Amino acid sequence: MPRPCVFCEIVAGRTPAHVVLDDEVTLAFLDTRPLFPGHTLLVPRAHHETLSDLPADMLAPYFERAQRLAGAMESALGAAGSFVALNNRVSQSVPHLHTHVVPRNRKDGLRGFFWPRTTYADDAEAAAVATRLRAGLSGLEAE
Amino acid sequence: MPRPCVFCEIVAGRTPAHVVLDDEVTLAFLDTRPLFPGHTLLVPRAHHETLSDLPADMLAPYFERAQRLAGAMESALGAAGSFVALNNRVSQSVPHLHTHVVPRNRKDGLRGFFWPRTTYADDAEAAAVATRLRAGLSGLEAE
Repeated sequence: MPRPCVFCEIVAGRTPAHVVLDDEVTLAFLDTRPLFPGHTLLVPRAHHETLSDLPADMLAPYFERAQRLAGAMESALGAAGSFVALNNRVSQSVPHLHTHVVPRNRKDGLRGFFWPRTTYADDAEAAAVATRLRAGLSGLEAE
Repeated sequence: MPRPCVFCEIVAGRTPAHVVLDDEVTLAFLDTRPLFPGHTLLVPRAHHETLSDLPADMLAPYFERAQRLAGAMESALGAAGSFVALNNRVSQSVPHLHTHVVPRNRKDGLRGFFWPRTTYADDAEAAAVATRLRAGLSGLEAE
């Protein structure tokens, strides 16, 4: 028997969690292993695996909650800012869409996006990558 | 005279960029210092500083583009997954809302959320943090 989805179990109330926001379409609760205290996970109540799987009519409701949670990191926790992020498939620990909303402060030790960066070999390489993405977005096959 | 916003300059076409998506309300273009090739920045055309500043009627359009870009990392670039993230204030290099959409692959060296994590001292500490966030979200002052 497959193991039930960890987040569906929390949504169903069968696994306890410190709930931060609870409404008809979403649930938000504290990550038990936070980057910083207040690190919250926002999930749609319905089981959708990745962002791509989220129905169009859920986009506004879901991200409105993410927006409010980001604001609450500052207004309720006194953070200087916030980090809002989601992983699709790779580094996605639970295959139920979840957005991390994390309070941030200056010199908090989280480098954010300051991981080692790369560069494009030249402008032509970058142009080729952009062309592939544009083609993919327009539903055309990149040549 | 204050320096013009870097992303507004790209939106206006005064600064070149490798554009990936261009429509009435958003623009997406390659980050010049990508985590991995294909790393795209999605911005609203209008200057909104943080996620909290994005008008309600822009939530669905903006995140629908983020959703499509995340899908394109897989369909157009052959990535195994994607990382979708935005920084509000802290670690936000340009104060014009931008969402990073980054292609991800297994063992690509990006640890994602596997930075050092902390823990709550006990359940009471976590409960207190959740209470503050809930109060903030409901517009009540946390005591």
